[in-house]
Amino acid sequence: MTGGTGRIFVVGLGPGNAAQRTPEADAALAQATDLIGYAPYVARVEAGPDVVRHASDNRVELDRARHAVELALAGRTVAVVSGGDAGVFGMASAVFEAIDHGPAAWRGVEVTVIPGLSAVLAAAARLGAPLGGDFCVISLSDNLKPREVVHRRLAAAAGAGLVVALYNPRSRARPDQLGAAFALLRTILPGTVPVAFARAIGRADERVILTDIAHADPEQVDMSTLVLIGCPLTHTITRANGEKWLYTSRSVAAPCA
Amino acid sequence: MTGGTGRIFVVGLGPGNAAQRTPEADAALAQATDLIGYAPYVARVEAGPDVVRHASDNRVELDRARHAVELALAGRTVAVVSGGDAGVFGMASAVFEAIDHGPAAWRGVEVTVIPGLSAVLAAAARLGAPLGGDFCVISLSDNLKPREVVHRRLAAAAGAGLVVALYNPRSRARPDQLGAAFALLRTILPGTVPVAFARAIGRADERVILTDIAHADPEQVDMSTLVLIGCPLTHTITRANGEKWLYTSRSVAAPCA
Repeated sequence: MTGGTGRIFVVGLGPGNAAQRTPEADAALAQATDLIGYAPYVARVEAGPDVVRHASDNRVELDRARHAVELALAGRTVAVVSGGDAGVFGMASAVFEAIDHGPAAWRGVEVTVIPGLSAVLAAAARLGAPLGGDFCVISLSDNLKPREVVHRRLAAAAGAGLVVALYNPRSRARPDQLGAAFALLRTILPGTVPVAFARAIGRADERVILTDIAHADPEQVDMSTLVLIGCPLTHTITRANGEKWLYTSRSVAAPCA
Repeated sequence: MTGGTGRIFVVGLGPGNAAQRTPEADAALAQATDLIGYAPYVARVEAGPDVVRHASDNRVELDRARHAVELALAGRTVAVVSGGDAGVFGMASAVFEAIDHGPAAWRGVEVTVIPGLSAVLAAAARLGAPLGGDFCVISLSDNLKPREVVHRRLAAAAGAGLVVALYNPRSRARPDQLGAAFALLRTILPGTVPVAFARAIGRADERVILTDIAHADPEQVDMSTLVLIGCPLTHTITRANGEKWLYTSRSVAAPCA
């Protein structure tokens, strides 16, 4: 490694299906000498034998980001990879945070963020058109923010009639958090508001469960699930074959909720 | 045209750059016998001479959606196209709304929604990582919802510390609406909160303006602009060459705003 002309691509790999990854992402990955990221995402990238894979555990985003900057400043072309879109609860924010808090020289590194298809878009498409109105995207994880902030945001969003997409809905360390969120939302939304659990969309083990907020059961949700909570304008269409579509009306006649 | 085996693909074309369109979208478009959509989007699709292009004006989404269903039930393979993601203020919701309110037979039509890279994700990547925390996506258009609903949602989102992405920020019919939204947000957010105007990202006429909520000037915004309003945890990094990155901290130490 010699100094100078390295760079960082922060690449969103999409939901897990190569057909949902953009050509722009493929082109960036093809230039990489080094791949950095959470091990399952690094494993998803096809690369030649000369490419160095720096796979790491979850929860070490800042260490990973600093490592990427150091490699780039040493002249390597580094692809920092995330599932979905790297800007949505992925590695992009960690890379800039590392640079912002690092030595002044770190601001000289070239960083290009390549957007990817986020899980919320893939899940919504699989369900129909539940994001047809205004919506918000919230991480339920309390690793990085207090639970009261999460609850305040959920209440504000649901109270204002936004559809809510929840990332990181559940983990072994906080098995009760999703149930608490549903309990809060039941105090705000009519019980009939549709709720969808969209697991591993675009992958072989994809699974979709449709329910409503009155009956939503956290036990049916794992960390690979995108939880989508409708608003009072989210409708269900039942087809002759029993399949269902969800969509949210584009028109709001009067204040929703 | 003979009845029976038609279908609808609702396809998100991405932000306007072919490298940001997924292979899945290309594969769906390649099967289409008919293309339906707002004229500039239909014009973006390369297709053979046998493919019928039904380009229409803006604001006729439901007519377009009904036409797509009728063609599909007559045996055609119809691609209904939107810029960005068809599920985010695009045609997907209109297609399901048409089916929901149409004859019972319409529920038999096959509909597949192919997700696309939404403008908010492309704009965020171009800016750095402004969506690093929780965020919401709101259409400022009052064609389909009362202005008071828009304002209630903006106030709820900003008050709860969400980053706000605004679609359809301005049109000739409502030139003052964005200014009213900024005025509202100035009563809620510190004046230093970063604001970005990201116009036509991924296209030849791309343009980015960075400012803050105290100084945000609606005159710099047109209908092709994605307006991104940070939260108090959105930071600016200034590089030695004068370029700037925006990112939002992943960590929330205490209630934001």
